[in-house]
Amino acid sequence: MAERVKKRSAKAGLPPGTLMHVGTRRVGETRVHIMDYDEGGVREKAPAKLDDCAPFRDTESVTWIDIEGLQDIPLLEGLGQCYGLHPLILEDILNTDQRPKTDDMEGYIYVVLKMLDFDPRTLEVVSEQVSLIFGRRYVISLQEGREGDLFEPLRERIRSGKGRLRRLGPDYLAYSLLDTIIDHYFAIMEKFAERIEALEDELVSDPGPETLHQIHRLKREMIFLRKAAWPLREVINTLEKSESELIRPATKLFLRDLYDHAIHIVDSIETHREMLSGMLDIYLSSVSNRMNQVMKVLTIIATIFMPLTFLAGVYGMNFRHMPEIPWRWSYPLFWLIIVAAAAAMVRYFKKKNWL
Amino acid sequence: MAERVKKRSAKAGLPPGTLMHVGTRRVGETRVHIMDYDEGGVREKAPAKLDDCAPFRDTESVTWIDIEGLQDIPLLEGLGQCYGLHPLILEDILNTDQRPKTDDMEGYIYVVLKMLDFDPRTLEVVSEQVSLIFGRRYVISLQEGREGDLFEPLRERIRSGKGRLRRLGPDYLAYSLLDTIIDHYFAIMEKFAERIEALEDELVSDPGPETLHQIHRLKREMIFLRKAAWPLREVINTLEKSESELIRPATKLFLRDLYDHAIHIVDSIETHREMLSGMLDIYLSSVSNRMNQVMKVLTIIATIFMPLTFLAGVYGMNFRHMPEIPWRWSYPLFWLIIVAAAAAMVRYFKKKNWL
Amino acid sequence: MAERVKKRSAKAGLPPGTLMHVGTRRVGETRVHIMDYDEGGVREKAPAKLDDCAPFRDTESVTWIDIEGLQDIPLLEGLGQCYGLHPLILEDILNTDQRPKTDDMEGYIYVVLKMLDFDPRTLEVVSEQVSLIFGRRYVISLQEGREGDLFEPLRERIRSGKGRLRRLGPDYLAYSLLDTIIDHYFAIMEKFAERIEALEDELVSDPGPETLHQIHRLKREMIFLRKAAWPLREVINTLEKSESELIRPATKLFLRDLYDHAIHIVDSIETHREMLSGMLDIYLSSVSNRMNQVMKVLTIIATIFMPLTFLAGVYGMNFRHMPEIPWRWSYPLFWLIIVAAAAAMVRYFKKKNWL
Amino acid sequence: MAERVKKRSAKAGLPPGTLMHVGTRRVGETRVHIMDYDEGGVREKAPAKLDDCAPFRDTESVTWIDIEGLQDIPLLEGLGQCYGLHPLILEDILNTDQRPKTDDMEGYIYVVLKMLDFDPRTLEVVSEQVSLIFGRRYVISLQEGREGDLFEPLRERIRSGKGRLRRLGPDYLAYSLLDTIIDHYFAIMEKFAERIEALEDELVSDPGPETLHQIHRLKREMIFLRKAAWPLREVINTLEKSESELIRPATKLFLRDLYDHAIHIVDSIETHREMLSGMLDIYLSSVSNRMNQVMKVLTIIATIFMPLTFLAGVYGMNFRHMPEIPWRWSYPLFWLIIVAAAAAMVRYFKKKNWL
Amino acid sequence: MAERVKKRSAKAGLPPGTLMHVGTRRVGETRVHIMDYDEGGVREKAPAKLDDCAPFRDTESVTWIDIEGLQDIPLLEGLGQCYGLHPLILEDILNTDQRPKTDDMEGYIYVVLKMLDFDPRTLEVVSEQVSLIFGRRYVISLQEGREGDLFEPLRERIRSGKGRLRRLGPDYLAYSLLDTIIDHYFAIMEKFAERIEALEDELVSDPGPETLHQIHRLKREMIFLRKAAWPLREVINTLEKSESELIRPATKLFLRDLYDHAIHIVDSIETHREMLSGMLDIYLSSVSNRMNQVMKVLTIIATIFMPLTFLAGVYGMNFRHMPEIPWRWSYPLFWLIIVAAAAAMVRYFKKKNWL
Repeated sequence: MAERVKKRSAKAGLPPGTLMHVGTRRVGETRVHIMDYDEGGVREKAPAKLDDCAPFRDTESVTWIDIEGLQDIPLLEGLGQCYGLHPLILEDILNTDQRPKTDDMEGYIYVVLKMLDFDPRTLEVVSEQVSLIFGRRYVISLQEGREGDLFEPLRERIRSGKGRLRRLGPDYLAYSLLDTIIDHYFAIMEKFAERIEALEDELVSDPGPETLHQIHRLKREMIFLRKAAWPLREVINTLEKSESELIRPATKLFLRDLYDHAIHIVDSIETHREMLSGMLDIYLSSVSNRMNQVMKVLTIIATIFMPLTFLAGVYGMNFRHMPEIPWRWSYPLFWLIIVAAAAAMVRYFKKKNWL
Repeated sequence: MAERVKKRSAKAGLPPGTLMHVGTRRVGETRVHIMDYDEGGVREKAPAKLDDCAPFRDTESVTWIDIEGLQDIPLLEGLGQCYGLHPLILEDILNTDQRPKTDDMEGYIYVVLKMLDFDPRTLEVVSEQVSLIFGRRYVISLQEGREGDLFEPLRERIRSGKGRLRRLGPDYLAYSLLDTIIDHYFAIMEKFAERIEALEDELVSDPGPETLHQIHRLKREMIFLRKAAWPLREVINTLEKSESELIRPATKLFLRDLYDHAIHIVDSIETHREMLSGMLDIYLSSVSNRMNQVMKVLTIIATIFMPLTFLAGVYGMNFRHMPEIPWRWSYPLFWLIIVAAAAAMVRYFKKKNWL
Repeated sequence: MAERVKKRSAKAGLPPGTLMHVGTRRVGETRVHIMDYDEGGVREKAPAKLDDCAPFRDTESVTWIDIEGLQDIPLLEGLGQCYGLHPLILEDILNTDQRPKTDDMEGYIYVVLKMLDFDPRTLEVVSEQVSLIFGRRYVISLQEGREGDLFEPLRERIRSGKGRLRRLGPDYLAYSLLDTIIDHYFAIMEKFAERIEALEDELVSDPGPETLHQIHRLKREMIFLRKAAWPLREVINTLEKSESELIRPATKLFLRDLYDHAIHIVDSIETHREMLSGMLDIYLSSVSNRMNQVMKVLTIIATIFMPLTFLAGVYGMNFRHMPEIPWRWSYPLFWLIIVAAAAAMVRYFKKKNWL
Repeated sequence: MAERVKKRSAKAGLPPGTLMHVGTRRVGETRVHIMDYDEGGVREKAPAKLDDCAPFRDTESVTWIDIEGLQDIPLLEGLGQCYGLHPLILEDILNTDQRPKTDDMEGYIYVVLKMLDFDPRTLEVVSEQVSLIFGRRYVISLQEGREGDLFEPLRERIRSGKGRLRRLGPDYLAYSLLDTIIDHYFAIMEKFAERIEALEDELVSDPGPETLHQIHRLKREMIFLRKAAWPLREVINTLEKSESELIRPATKLFLRDLYDHAIHIVDSIETHREMLSGMLDIYLSSVSNRMNQVMKVLTIIATIFMPLTFLAGVYGMNFRHMPEIPWRWSYPLFWLIIVAAAAAMVRYFKKKNWL
Repeated sequence: MAERVKKRSAKAGLPPGTLMHVGTRRVGETRVHIMDYDEGGVREKAPAKLDDCAPFRDTESVTWIDIEGLQDIPLLEGLGQCYGLHPLILEDILNTDQRPKTDDMEGYIYVVLKMLDFDPRTLEVVSEQVSLIFGRRYVISLQEGREGDLFEPLRERIRSGKGRLRRLGPDYLAYSLLDTIIDHYFAIMEKFAERIEALEDELVSDPGPETLHQIHRLKREMIFLRKAAWPLREVINTLEKSESELIRPATKLFLRDLYDHAIHIVDSIETHREMLSGMLDIYLSSVSNRMNQVMKVLTIIATIFMPLTFLAGVYGMNFRHMPEIPWRWSYPLFWLIIVAAAAAMVRYFKKKNWL
């Protein structure tokens, strides 16, 4: 949770466009991975340096520069100069507390969104910011650099040359990257759904304070999930409706499909939220019900034994003149009365549906 | 419930457009049913094969290809090639976790929605995805293939030649299919309404934890029902407002009527949701009321018998010098006091409206 | 309540446009009442038959055909043929589970809405569907045929020839019918308001489970009232904004006024709903408060008498060697301690504000 | 409260445009106050009669006719004829259960809104309907006629000739009237805010059922306040955006400012509503907390004394053969055990944080 | 809190445009700070007087007049005359209870918003109103004059001549001022987030009434924060979309970025609100859970000891003929029964999961 509070305030007072990494610094080196491909073949360079970018810039083939780790500010500045990126864009890339959005700049399109992961054991959503920049002949993707690489299958598809990827332009590659990220949301939703189902069973079989706690944690994570997913619809819709010539009509068809996925995710989040709210209601009313049960037991016990104890107390009194004391059948009669009274009360409670 | 979590994640990393069946595989063969009709007559072929589709494609008569079961991927690929369907459409057909939507492709219109069923005994909504594709002279309908066939009455109407169905084009057939599916929603709403009414009576006569459980289950099913029904309005509105020449003006009048039905369904769902929320409130406040009742009984018993027991305890003490002990009328007096005190307290509780 | 579930499902599978009465069949004959009027005079025929409609159709005077009871399907079919009504319109008229709407057909305008009544004794809203069709020289109104006729004052106004009604066309008559129906909503709102006020007083003076029950019933009826009233705004707005030449500009001024009424009704419903929610909150917190009161009584009694009873028990023990037993002043001292302890505890509870 | 239910239903069945006063009849005479002014001077007549209106109608100076009390229907009819008012407008003026709105009629603009007052002692919002009609050279204002006159300062400003009022036209006068009324809303909001603050303090220091009752009454009044204030935004926005030549561009600037005020009021109402909801939550949870406290006291007392009483009971038994009875140190030992057990239990409760 | 209720009502009845300071008067002098700069150099004057403004007005360099403290009304009137400000704008500046908004006047643009601060110790949001007016060659900023000056770093940047600030016009300076204020919102959100996290930990480890109190106070402050932040989006969006030539296209790019920040803040506020609501739910359910726990202890104690006490009472009775009394093994047998009964009950409670 602590990680979610980004120290954005550290930048207060600095002029806009000042480059500074806002967010947790991931350990290790910044990794640069360059792929340059056209229908004819693939050229790959990893690990690469900033200087390796320049030669690919002016070729007609598609260049994909993938950068993991944002701590190397000179590298990003160099990249910005090489590709003519606006300082505000560089600032947005470095500020990892960004709301998903897209900006149609002159000559390139900038997209920023969250790559999510969910650990069903700790019930926590982990988020990594991904920035995409694509122009006429290049795509730059920038990740914070957590472990795990969702883009490897994509690289494999480029290398193999199967499918459309090699034939189509950087807009299709950008779409594929977005598709990969958003498809991973479905995997998270599934894990959530499984956890919710397990909790639902637990709620029926053996609800405890831990169940409540888990429902609340899932609800909280859902808030963050929604915060990341909600703006996606607008981002992708903006791309699809964009009049920029950087996005070809053929790619727009795919973006429309992706838009449906984004809506589907938002829908699922709402559904899960409502289910969790419903589960919270069940839990609370089951607590109420059990309290009722406990109170009934207490009341039954008290109602049966208080009068009996009183009666026993009466015959424990030491008054000199108590006619019942010397009688022969007092004691058996006493028990008779006791049993009869208890039986009557049990019957009464049965009638009142308390037993 | 388990069935609702579709293993969409299995597709992660695959290129978009890869055909793979997402969802539970229904048992049995894929069934193909071909009907070809015009005002003059009907030609029918069932069970049919892929090769049977081709000859009908280029005739001027309307061809309706109905496919039940989605596991036969080569068949779907063949169909896609035969009718020039976009790979993304084929992918959407196979992915049975689709949100209802419509896509106006070049040369044909694609509609996907949910065919629902409700079992009032298990209180579960069962859903089956239906895809409709209609072009200038054909309609293709694809179902997951659960038991029960809603479309049989429609086939009967085509065979009999009564009504408008034979005279009008594939857009009217598509409308009729949609109308059949959506009309079935009303049947589900009725079953829901009856169950809610029964629960409402139960709530007044004899509410128990099971009542609560059923309210919650109905609420949960309502969430899924709404998820399926909500986008319908947009789907049908898009069709009605469509500028595609595939939908004739005469059919649009029917689509407008269907749109009213869709709004009506969504309205009813909201009404049911509010009623269920109201019922939950009643249940919870009746639990509170009963708790109050139980507590009153306990308090009355304790308030009456605790002082009496104390008094009996006092005269059970063994102090040598207790003036009341040897008195002649102590014991009757004791009972007199006891009865008077109890009567006073009962009166007090009556005044306080606790009895 | 039961009446609200219309057996719409009985129509499933039938082709659209099939005429079948959906709803409860009202007892008795279908009544037809024809009025034909212009500035010069009024011609009236009641009870009338289908054949009586035809002669008035082609005159330049305004014809108002009012039909009560929808079970006579041949009559409606005849009417449909005579005035060229679309089969879907006839179907909508017969289906009394219709959402309020308006359709601008060629040559006539169709409006369907609910005529409501509220019985403050049973706290139930009773609804009757009214369809209005008006063309260039005629108005057809169709009611389900419950007892009570809201339209009689209107007929009287036509007969008397006072006011604008005779001078203006069928659009003004249609407006007057709508105005009559919607004005009756205000009467219902008033009855609701009075019932709510009475309940509010009851809530302060003497709340009981019955109060809760009535709040819930009012809330439930409010759901149905809202369902009927909410779409009215759109219906009347559509009429007012309509470009159809069937509605004259002068009438639009009246429709705008009616639109304000509709908004006013929806506002009032929302206000009532919020007040009922507030009352529910008051009820529940007063239950909580009373529970608190009961618990305090129990705790006070237990806290005072348990220690005392214990002390009495101690001196009821039979140990041979208890120094207090033979003392002269043990017993008075015992009472002194008891009274002092009780007084101390009462004081403590007073300080804690429990008494 | 009772006053809020206006007997609008009394008009049901009457033709639209029938003049009848709906609302409580205020005591006393209808007062007419006429001011006629231009930059040169002011002519004033109060109390005035209907006939006094006519001479001012055709002059080029601005005429302000202020009418208090709506029971004099002939006067209003005369006024309507004199200024050519539409019957529906006259009807709206008389119906004091009107929703705030504005109508752009031919030749004049009609505005109706609520003048509110709030009595912090009874916690009640009192409302008075004000209608404004302004044309090219006149403004007519109609009030229900409660005591207190908000418009007197305005008259004073006209008389003194200071400020813009005398230089500008009737649209500016109408704006000034609206501004006066809406500014008074801020005064009400302040009184509300002070009452809420006082309640907030009470909630912390000494909450009781009366606190709850007051929160609920403030909430209820807020509902009515909102009902009156909500449509104001639309009313003023419509005036500002109006294309009528009756409103000069210079006045629109002031209307825009007024629009900001209206939004500000609606914002404040929402803020107050949320604060009241929050206070209700605090109250309820403090009730829960206190209940918890009470229960703990009861449980502690019972847990300590029940076992002790049992033990005392054991040694009060009369069995012939009880070895502890004749022992020398039984009684001191008994007390030792009792004290030790009580101490252990107190310690246990301290550890459990119950004490 | 008290400070939040601005005595706006004091102005009721005064003509619009009357200058009067609404709000708390800050102690001390009104401070005027003038900076005049272009690419060539900076001229600065502080403390300055009204007369110092005039010479800078007509130069081509950018003039920034920063005023702290609003109590000096003649100064503001002089400024208004010097720069031709509309009286309504001056009125808005002085009324510190303003909703954030922007007005595009002729020749200048007026922006008003709130500068916020949050004290995590008292959990209170402190707000200061800032007005910005910028024309073709000047920017006027007006603050209420609390301690702390957010604008100092900006002045430093102007003095140093680094960055774009000196090169660009007054629109960029206005943007920089807005950016500074809005960036400070992030700092507040962080403090909120940290407080919420601390409370979340407290909620798990050791929740008490103070925790509840703090949650409620954070919620209340969030209401005020939202009231200040919500309209910001619209304000900045209006500026960005403005067609005024006072805002250059280059600046609009920065405004778009600022707009994203504003949306981000509103998003975060919503997230925090939901988290606080969730925490309230946790607190309440944990209270319920503990109550349940307490009740169980009470019930267990009562259920075990009431029957035992009754049995001890029975053998304390003084009946002459009780066969068990003289028996040799009665007493050991009694203990045996007691222990066995207690053990059985403990086992029963264990099975019922109460222990």
